[in-house]
Amino acid sequence: MALGEFELIDRFFRRPARQAVVGVGDDCAVVAPTPGMQWCVTTDLLVEGRHFLPTVAPERLGHKALAVNLSDLAACGAEPRAFTLALAMPRADEAFLEGFARGLLALADAHGIELVGGDTTAGPLVISITAFGEVPAGRALLRGGARAGDDLWVSGTLGDARAALEAFRGNARISAEAFDAARCAMERPQPRVALGIALRGLATSAIDLSDGLLGDLGHVLRASGVGACVELAALPRSRWLGELPPALQRICLLQGGDDYELLFTAPAARAAAVQAAAQGAGVAVARIGRIEPGAALRVVDADGRAVEVAASGFDHFRT
Amino acid sequence: MALGEFELIDRFFRRPARQAVVGVGDDCAVVAPTPGMQWCVTTDLLVEGRHFLPTVAPERLGHKALAVNLSDLAACGAEPRAFTLALAMPRADEAFLEGFARGLLALADAHGIELVGGDTTAGPLVISITAFGEVPAGRALLRGGARAGDDLWVSGTLGDARAALEAFRGNARISAEAFDAARCAMERPQPRVALGIALRGLATSAIDLSDGLLGDLGHVLRASGVGACVELAALPRSRWLGELPPALQRICLLQGGDDYELLFTAPAARAAAVQAAAQGAGVAVARIGRIEPGAALRVVDADGRAVEVAASGFDHFRT
Repeated sequence: MALGEFELIDRFFRRPARQAVVGVGDDCAVVAPTPGMQWCVTTDLLVEGRHFLPTVAPERLGHKALAVNLSDLAACGAEPRAFTLALAMPRADEAFLEGFARGLLALADAHGIELVGGDTTAGPLVISITAFGEVPAGRALLRGGARAGDDLWVSGTLGDARAALEAFRGNARISAEAFDAARCAMERPQPRVALGIALRGLATSAIDLSDGLLGDLGHVLRASGVGACVELAALPRSRWLGELPPALQRICLLQGGDDYELLFTAPAARAAAVQAAAQGAGVAVARIGRIEPGAALRVVDADGRAVEVAASGFDHFRT
Repeated sequence: MALGEFELIDRFFRRPARQAVVGVGDDCAVVAPTPGMQWCVTTDLLVEGRHFLPTVAPERLGHKALAVNLSDLAACGAEPRAFTLALAMPRADEAFLEGFARGLLALADAHGIELVGGDTTAGPLVISITAFGEVPAGRALLRGGARAGDDLWVSGTLGDARAALEAFRGNARISAEAFDAARCAMERPQPRVALGIALRGLATSAIDLSDGLLGDLGHVLRASGVGACVELAALPRSRWLGELPPALQRICLLQGGDDYELLFTAPAARAAAVQAAAQGAGVAVARIGRIEPGAALRVVDADGRAVEVAASGFDHFRT
């Protein structure tokens, strides 16, 4: 017998409200803000065939759907509190739902947040999550605060998700070990929530990397009215990325997309404090360049020579 | 030239932030809660062909996509503050976007709220809005508060949207005037926000009617652990509904769906206060029955005789 909409919600997504005053099952969820905090809100929409492959394991999809939103909260230095889920799918497939809910709720548990409401319907497979977090009033990390002279930093490694996609598409041959690592990076990104919180009052600007380093850095530069110089040799990369042809390595690093690492700026004098904050958050960070006056985005090699790159990020209506 | 994702957001959806600390264009929106208030959050997902017809005017679709969420906030007695929009569409169609944004933002302006963030992508036409409102701590109207002896009330008229759908499908012949009125009810529902706020501290439970009177009343009865008797003759209806065959009239009234009126309960002794609250909110309300002990949902005719009805509401995975 087909599972109905209300049973589906009950069975896979309803759990007792812990933080929320009212959780799943009423017209609205009700959540009590912490006094003195502001609310950060972010929404992402994932469409099958565009944001994820039909072959993805449902558990990883559940993880990723929430992870991309927590990554946006991390980029604002917000502490996640709750999220809602809107889910359209062709039919109520119990095996899919069981795995999807497991991946989704495991990541929610890891961050101490809960699913407070949502909507499910029949339709093409589409997932939209809206996540809420809190930040002390006036201390959200924004894109517009980078200043000339600031160091440019990034967390983790770049390009792994793009490398996995290229391998999937048959454009790159990499070892089985490398493919597993790349696929895990693509399907199970780890939102840098602890790092974002540790960077409050330290970073001058921040953004999460979803559209590729150059594209997202461009957003920061435009919002801040500055330029930047990126050192190609300084970009942190997985050891196995060296299995790819050099031109493809560069594309993965600079234009990869789906990294979900934090790109941020901080005054050069605070470099030691940035390293300490990252260590406290358990995340590696690397200094990859410098913010400059003007509006130009330059990429240079180890000898300081300009590297030619196409500067556009990923655009969902142009790809 | 095709419109890009970021230009699209800029051109149609970005407006200067008024209430929000940070609006569209950063990783998150940042909103300052009002001290002493709790946050109400609701999400809806609309899929073309299921929740709206491909023939709907984009402006009406923009209106409706927000209206259904404001209706959920109304059912909690919340005052709307802000919303996010996740929009997938096959291509960046400027004529569609212009109309859609106009309808969406006009309703937002009418309620003094703003679009604070979102996501756009290519894909099947799907719209997901998450709306936020505020309610004084502990005073949200919920489904679980109905008590035996309470009056059962509903706002506006019932069944208009279903009547329009039946006419669209060729199952009913109605006059052009009636069709226009019904279609307007279906495509431009008016969320009962002012009524919801006026009912704080007065209604013992509330829900908005999206799945049909009996289905949604069933949610209230189960959540409250009570039964109810509904008087068929007391159900408020548009004059032109009489153009439909009696059996279809009854289906529209009892199981219509998409009404977006408020169904609520209040102590019988507070009937005059309910009428005064509704008058203050500029909305007609009608007493349509009574909450009873037990768990049964009965519908009776003008002579008190039981009317046979199928009690299930709309289910997106069973229809």
